[in-house]
Amino acid sequence: MSTSDDLYAVADFCLIPMGTGEPSVAGYIAECQRVLEKSGLKYKVGYGTNLEGPWSEVSKAIHDCHLAVHAQGAPRIATDIRIGTRTDREIAPGTGNEAKVKRVEDILSK
Amino acid sequence: MSTSDDLYAVADFCLIPMGTGEPSVAGYIAECQRVLEKSGLKYKVGYGTNLEGPWSEVSKAIHDCHLAVHAQGAPRIATDIRIGTRTDREIAPGTGNEAKVKRVEDILSK
Amino acid sequence: MSTSDDLYAVADFCLIPMGTGEPSVAGYIAECQRVLEKSGLKYKVGYGTNLEGPWSEVSKAIHDCHLAVHAQGAPRIATDIRIGTRTDREIAPGTGNEAKVKRVEDILSK
Amino acid sequence: MSTSDDLYAVADFCLIPMGTGEPSVAGYIAECQRVLEKSGLKYKVGYGTNLEGPWSEVSKAIHDCHLAVHAQGAPRIATDIRIGTRTDREIAPGTGNEAKVKRVEDILSK
Repeated sequence: MSTSDDLYAVADFCLIPMGTGEPSVAGYIAECQRVLEKSGLKYKVGYGTNLEGPWSEVSKAIHDCHLAVHAQGAPRIATDIRIGTRTDREIAPGTGNEAKVKRVEDILSK
Repeated sequence: MSTSDDLYAVADFCLIPMGTGEPSVAGYIAECQRVLEKSGLKYKVGYGTNLEGPWSEVSKAIHDCHLAVHAQGAPRIATDIRIGTRTDREIAPGTGNEAKVKRVEDILSK
Repeated sequence: MSTSDDLYAVADFCLIPMGTGEPSVAGYIAECQRVLEKSGLKYKVGYGTNLEGPWSEVSKAIHDCHLAVHAQGAPRIATDIRIGTRTDREIAPGTGNEAKVKRVEDILSK
Repeated sequence: MSTSDDLYAVADFCLIPMGTGEPSVAGYIAECQRVLEKSGLKYKVGYGTNLEGPWSEVSKAIHDCHLAVHAQGAPRIATDIRIGTRTDREIAPGTGNEAKVKRVEDILSK
């Protein structure tokens, strides 16, 4: 799923439509979810949206969210992406984000 | 809970200990949860940690996470904070992060 | 300038007014600069705005930028803050951001 | 330079090597600059690194920085990327970041 030329990326992005004349962004974020659903990548919406997979696919999915949100009328978009890669640990596809939370919970439950 | 001089903030922060000699951060994040538990603020751990309350208290809680992680041995810490405020909508204390996700889900379920 | 209870913070923040009906943000960022000028902290505008000083003062300056931008009519604001602290190195007040860039330049010039 | 399927992106990224056993990151950031130099994209190092160009190229350049920093020994990397696109304004290649700062300066100099 990820070659040495395409690192596996565990990411979280927060997309902000600008110049829309309305403070609400839920409609745009919903549109992003439809885009992500089509991407086939694992994702989960929270403050930002968790997304993981090969770097190039993660990047393309976020790019396509921009395309979709521009198409909905937002003239400008600012997105903050947190993206992590690691070479010390093999990440089973789709498990990166959940595993991070679980390791913290395991420590706290001791 | 929040005066005009202390905006209500809905935030998400991702704290990264540096120079620790180990790629794992779960122990440090667990320590942060202990700090947040004492802060009395509403929080939830995911890719980053959701946190909300009066700006000054949210800021102090994250600062105190830095103090705690430095005390655990990390010589340097880099944190990314996403923080939002709004004046168009009254946010009932502790409901800001959940409400954001719910509005998206409501749109998608239509 | 910074006690053990107020870590020295080297930060960079990117403030995004939402729901303004215009994609341009320069007027709001200019207003932020006026706020930062009054704060007495060292700052520099780029993609985001570099800002450094005791954590509590850095946080208050950014909070006051939110207050000023709300006062200018933005109903909602989303800010991304990158903030770093370190205990391995004493940072002379106002030199943190410049020193980071200089260390990279020194390595490249070798 | 950028087709409708590859939005022009004005970005800033902050790459943090993890698990390195040393708090200093200047050597890794210098290595990133060598990667960016080869990318042919316009960039500038500050708190983060400004970078702009077609989205896919910007993304690949940051990915290749991860590859280079992993190759230098960092087992884990966390990067924060701020990335913006806009459809209301044509951006001459390589001018996006500078123009943003200039518009703020123009307002303040009035």
